[in-house]
Amino acid sequence: MSDQSAELEPEREDDAYVLGPKAVAAILYAVDIDDSAKLTELMEPLHPADIADLLEQINAFDRSRLVRLYGREFDGEILSELDESIREEVIGVLTPQVLSQAVRDMDSDDVVDLVEDLEDHQQEAILDALPDADRVAVQQALSYPEYSAGRLMQRELVMAPEHWTVGQAIDHLRATPEDELPAQFYHIVLVDPRLHPIGNVTLGKLMRSKRETRLIDIKEETFQVIPVQQDESDVAYAFNQYHLISAPVVDDEERLIGVITIDDAMVVLDEEHEEDILRLAGVGEGSLSDRVVETTKQRLPWLAVNLVTAIAASLVIAQFEVAIAQIVALAVLMPIVASMGGNAGTQSLTVAVRAIATKDLTGANVWRVIRREVLVGLINGVIFAVVMGIVGLLWFGSPALGYVIAAAMVINLVVAGLAGTVIPVILDRVGVDPALASGAFVTTVTDVVGFFAFLGLAVVVLL
Amino acid sequence: MSDQSAELEPEREDDAYVLGPKAVAAILYAVDIDDSAKLTELMEPLHPADIADLLEQINAFDRSRLVRLYGREFDGEILSELDESIREEVIGVLTPQVLSQAVRDMDSDDVVDLVEDLEDHQQEAILDALPDADRVAVQQALSYPEYSAGRLMQRELVMAPEHWTVGQAIDHLRATPEDELPAQFYHIVLVDPRLHPIGNVTLGKLMRSKRETRLIDIKEETFQVIPVQQDESDVAYAFNQYHLISAPVVDDEERLIGVITIDDAMVVLDEEHEEDILRLAGVGEGSLSDRVVETTKQRLPWLAVNLVTAIAASLVIAQFEVAIAQIVALAVLMPIVASMGGNAGTQSLTVAVRAIATKDLTGANVWRVIRREVLVGLINGVIFAVVMGIVGLLWFGSPALGYVIAAAMVINLVVAGLAGTVIPVILDRVGVDPALASGAFVTTVTDVVGFFAFLGLAVVVLL
Repeated sequence: MSDQSAELEPEREDDAYVLGPKAVAAILYAVDIDDSAKLTELMEPLHPADIADLLEQINAFDRSRLVRLYGREFDGEILSELDESIREEVIGVLTPQVLSQAVRDMDSDDVVDLVEDLEDHQQEAILDALPDADRVAVQQALSYPEYSAGRLMQRELVMAPEHWTVGQAIDHLRATPEDELPAQFYHIVLVDPRLHPIGNVTLGKLMRSKRETRLIDIKEETFQVIPVQQDESDVAYAFNQYHLISAPVVDDEERLIGVITIDDAMVVLDEEHEEDILRLAGVGEGSLSDRVVETTKQRLPWLAVNLVTAIAASLVIAQFEVAIAQIVALAVLMPIVASMGGNAGTQSLTVAVRAIATKDLTGANVWRVIRREVLVGLINGVIFAVVMGIVGLLWFGSPALGYVIAAAMVINLVVAGLAGTVIPVILDRVGVDPALASGAFVTTVTDVVGFFAFLGLAVVVLL
Repeated sequence: MSDQSAELEPEREDDAYVLGPKAVAAILYAVDIDDSAKLTELMEPLHPADIADLLEQINAFDRSRLVRLYGREFDGEILSELDESIREEVIGVLTPQVLSQAVRDMDSDDVVDLVEDLEDHQQEAILDALPDADRVAVQQALSYPEYSAGRLMQRELVMAPEHWTVGQAIDHLRATPEDELPAQFYHIVLVDPRLHPIGNVTLGKLMRSKRETRLIDIKEETFQVIPVQQDESDVAYAFNQYHLISAPVVDDEERLIGVITIDDAMVVLDEEHEEDILRLAGVGEGSLSDRVVETTKQRLPWLAVNLVTAIAASLVIAQFEVAIAQIVALAVLMPIVASMGGNAGTQSLTVAVRAIATKDLTGANVWRVIRREVLVGLINGVIFAVVMGIVGLLWFGSPALGYVIAAAMVINLVVAGLAGTVIPVILDRVGVDPALASGAFVTTVTDVVGFFAFLGLAVVVLL
C-alpha cells in the first residue's frame, strides 16, 4: 500500500486492501460539494480495481454523480474491473468522448472482456471508438465461442523461428516498434516453419545467455499449447496444474495465433470457483451489486426446484398420516432423520463436485470413492443412530421408537453417501454441470428416503 | 498436450488434461510385471503434477509398488504436488538416497511447502538432506507464521539500486552466477539505499530500453509491497485484485527480503476457494485421498452440530403436539416451510460469505445489502406464499390452512434473508470464519422460525 496517501490507509490491520469508510466518506463528500479537483486528488492514488470496488459499493445515485464529476479522468481499466451488472449503467453515464478515450488505451483482450456482455448498441459504440486494427482484432476474438481460449488470448505476442540465436532474438525485440509488442510479456515463443509453437524461452534466460546460443537450447522444460476452442475452465486448470506463466494458443491447424498469460487464467480460476460456490448454493449468477428485482429473479428458480423437492417429501409423509395421528412423536422426530441425511448428502456431493472440477475423480477411482462415501455414511450413521436412539428413548420413553429412529438414521446416511457421490458423477457423464443440479437431486433423495424409512419402520414396528 | 505420447492422450475431447484410464492401466500393468524400464518410459512424458494425480487416484498398495519401482526417477516436484494426506505415506516408501536427491533439486519455497506439514522425523530427514545454505533458508522461512507471506516467498530475487541504468542492470544480471538467481523471474526490484523496494522493472522493458536509460524511468505503474506477516489469503487477493505478476516482500522495517510470484498466489487462491467451498458444506478439510476413518472424523463434528440444530427444531415441533394430533396435515406441510427457509437462507449467506471474502461487503454497503436481501426474501416469500397457499387449499381443501402456510412462508423467507446476511457479517466482525459457522446458525434460525411460525399460526387460526 506504499503509494496510497495516509488518508486512504485501511483502518484495521486485518483489512489490508479494503477502502476504509473514512476514505469512502471523503470521496462522497467531494462529490456532494461538486469539487472535481478534490475528487481527482482523492481518487488518484487508487488502483482502477479499487475504484471499481468503490463504485460497486455506493448507491446508484452517488455512482452516477461520481462518474460524471470524475469525467475525463475515467479510465478504461475501471470499466474492465467493474461488475457486469453495473458496467452497463456506468457506460450509460459516460459521455461518448470519455468512453472512446477510455477504451482506446486498453489492450485488445481487455476490450473483448469489456464488450462481450454489453448490449448491442453499447457494444457498437465502443467498437466504433477503436482504431480500425483494434476493432478488427476485437471482432475476430468475439467470433470465438464464449468462454473459449479464443476470447481469453491476446494477439500481441513475441515469436521467433526455432533456428534463431539469442543475439538475433534480442536484436529483433529491440527493432520491433513499441506498439506491436504486448504491454507485458515474459516469454518468446519458438515456432517451426509452419508456425507451430514448439517451446518457450524466458526473458531471464535470454538475457543471461551468450549471443550465439541457439534459442532451442535454452527453451523451458514445461510447455503446454492451448487449442483456441478449449473451454476457459480447462485453460485455468492447465495454468494451475502445470504452473504455467504464459502459453501459446493455436488454431485448428495448430498454428500460433495468440498467447494467454497467467493473470488472465487466474481471473478465470477465480470466476469458476465463484460460480461453483454460488451454483452449489442455488444462487445462479448472483452478485452483490445486483438489484432487488434481478436478485429475486436469479434465486426464484432454485427455490421453485426446492419447493417441488419439499412437496415430494410431503407426499411421502402424507402416506403415513394415520400413523402420525396415532403417534405424534413421529412428527416431532421425523425432520431430524431427513435433516441429517441432507447434511451428510451435501458433504459427500460437495467433495465429489470439487473432485470432478479438479479432475481428481476419474474412471480410475470412482468405485473406490463411492465405497468410501458409503462406508463413511455407515460409520457416522451408526454413531448418530446410537445417539438418537438414546435421545428418542429418553425423550419419549419408548425403546421401540429409539430403534426405529436409529435404523432410519443408518439407512439415510448410507443412502446420502451413495447419492451424494453417484448423482454428481452421473450428471457430469451426461454433460450437466454437477455443481448446478446435484443439490436438488441429493436432497430429494435424502428427504424422501429419510421420511419413508423412519415412518415406514415406525408403522411396521410400532403399530 | 503436444509432448505426450499417443498412448497417453485423453480419450474424450472434453477431458483435456485427464490421464485416460488406458494410460493408467498401462502404467499399473508395468508395475504388475515389475518392468521398471517400461514404467520409466510411460512416466517420462508426464508432468510431475500429473504423476501426483496418478498416485492419488490409485490405491495404497499399487502406490507403494509404483514408487518403489520408479525409484531414482522420483522427482521432488512430484512430492510438492502430492496431496498432504498421501505425501507422508509416499515419503515413507522412498529410500533416503532417493529422497535426498529429490529435495536437493527443489527451490527453497517449494521445500518449505513440502516440509511444513510433515511430522518431525520426516521433516528432519529432509532438512538433513539439504545443503547448509538451503537448510538455513528453509528453517528461516519456517520461523514465519503458517499461512503468512513469509512461508510463501522465495528468497532468490534480482534487485538493483534505484540510481542504476539499464546497462548496469544487464551487466549485473549477466555477471551473477546461475545458482544465485531464481529459476524464473520477471522483474527487477528497485531499492533505495535502505533496501526499501520502490518499484518493479519488467525484463521486457529492460531489454528494449537503451543502456543509458535510468531504471527508475521505466518502472511499472502498479506496484504493491507485501508485508512478511501478511496472511496468504490477503496476498492472493492482492495479486488477483491488482493483476500482479510478482511482488516484493518486506520485513517489519520495510526492507526487501523476498519475492512472491503469481503462480504461488494462484495456488493459494485455489486452496482458499476450496477451503471455503468445503467449509460452507460442513466438510472441514476433506480431500478425496483421505481414508475412511479420517473422512468420518472430519465430517462427524459438522453432523453433530446439525443434530443439535435439528433437535432444537424438533423441540419447537413438540410444543405443538396437540395441534398436530388434531390436524395431521400440519405434519405433512411443515417441512416445506422449514425447507424453503433453509434454502433461501443458504442463498443469502453464500452471497454474503463470498462478498466478505472478496472484500465487497464492507461497512459502506452492509445496510444496503441487508435491505436488499430482506426485500428479495419478501418478494420471493409472497410469490411462494401464493403458490403454497393454492397447493394447501387444493390438497387439503382448507382455505385457512392455505392462509397459514402462506403467511408462514413470507415470514420465514424474510427471516432467512435477514439471518443469511447478518449472521456471517457478525461472525466476521468477531473474528470467526463466516464460511465455517454461518450455515449451522442460519439453518437453526430458519428451522425454528419456520416450524414456529407455521404451527403457531395454525394454532391461532385453525384451532
